[in-house]
Amino acid sequence: MQPVKFYFSFLDQSSRALYILLEASKIPFEAIPISILKGEHLTGEFRDKVSQFKCLPVINDDNLSLVGSITIFRHLNREKIVPEHWYPRRNYGRSRIDEFLEWQQRNTAMACGNYFQQKWLSPILNKASPDAKNASVLTECLNQSLKNFENHFLNKNKFVIGENISYADLMAICEIDQPKFIGFDPFNHHPKLGKWYDRVREELGPYYKKVAIEFDNKLRTAEKKIPEVMYLQQ
Amino acid sequence: MQPVKFYFSFLDQSSRALYILLEASKIPFEAIPISILKGEHLTGEFRDKVSQFKCLPVINDDNLSLVGSITIFRHLNREKIVPEHWYPRRNYGRSRIDEFLEWQQRNTAMACGNYFQQKWLSPILNKASPDAKNASVLTECLNQSLKNFENHFLNKNKFVIGENISYADLMAICEIDQPKFIGFDPFNHHPKLGKWYDRVREELGPYYKKVAIEFDNKLRTAEKKIPEVMYLQQ
Repeated sequence: MQPVKFYFSFLDQSSRALYILLEASKIPFEAIPISILKGEHLTGEFRDKVSQFKCLPVINDDNLSLVGSITIFRHLNREKIVPEHWYPRRNYGRSRIDEFLEWQQRNTAMACGNYFQQKWLSPILNKASPDAKNASVLTECLNQSLKNFENHFLNKNKFVIGENISYADLMAICEIDQPKFIGFDPFNHHPKLGKWYDRVREELGPYYKKVAIEFDNKLRTAEKKIPEVMYLQQ
Repeated sequence: MQPVKFYFSFLDQSSRALYILLEASKIPFEAIPISILKGEHLTGEFRDKVSQFKCLPVINDDNLSLVGSITIFRHLNREKIVPEHWYPRRNYGRSRIDEFLEWQQRNTAMACGNYFQQKWLSPILNKASPDAKNASVLTECLNQSLKNFENHFLNKNKFVIGENISYADLMAICEIDQPKFIGFDPFNHHPKLGKWYDRVREELGPYYKKVAIEFDNKLRTAEKKIPEVMYLQQ
């Protein structure tokens, strides 16, 4: 069987979650990095040859092109061998993970994504310092969504849906890393979140570590090229 | 087996899609209407007894409470007997429907939802006319997202993913009805959309008709109570 072609960027949270899942599940894949900073995903070539949606991550599996982290996650579960704990059938685990992922998209993912976009990505792409007026709204919104995440999902169990790590935890840690890796402290006022974060990181071990180092490298390399923006951002 | 408890509002697009799916699939369910206009989904009673998320639609099945249209749709597919065409296994149909639903959430669903919220729901709830400055942005955004829907999904096939109706079509028509039923013409400049819309409506037959009439009744009844807002909205 052909390896899955995986078009991704380490700067993108969903790409990192899938990269970890693919490696941890030992699914053969060909990693094809796409530069968001160079806008490679926005070109006509990408649209014609990879995916019409100009978004990352994308896979190509058996000539089917698919975009979207949750879509790809479910596709892999149907078509490949993915260890059960990521998306367990027992105790309605799949329904509860689906509920978390749908909730997250409108809450933590949106808040973390907006924060990263406006505090880091847009300033880098536009070579301009971020809008100061917006900054306090972004921070407030992010803190509120982290508080909701704690209250709704980190009250009873070791991980989001129970005693084992699932794709819910993997998506959540990658989302939260977007603001965290550019200087936001997500654990201030959120002690349960801090403990959960450490457990997830430990459980993911070297798979997480590798991807986190790559993400950090991409951030720091880009910042070196536009130091004046980063200085204004402080 | 106990019927599924279904908490919903005809004013909510995802509720209508699931209502049609439940009826068309002959899944036994108890319909429990919740008034968005009275804020019944925001109360402590709803949170404690139905769902912690203060959102609609919600089901309670075998003591599992679940929120979110796509989550509930997938749960019903796993736990009940749902006709194959709604979420077909063949030709990677499930992956392609998942991709559409994930795309839609960030595009048409967001544009249709914002339009409805700002042009109808907020004015009704706040007893104030809508923000005129915003109106042209909302319309532009909505037209752009309908154009994208046409270009990406209505080029080749009778329905979104092929020759048969699926949950992708059902979600899409219910989303588009949000602006349509409050006076927006989605078919202006979008002829393919108009033809697709007629096909979907015809295919859904009486199931669609019943739900559309209920939606329309809710809208008109609420408007009668605050005619001055509706007058200013023109």
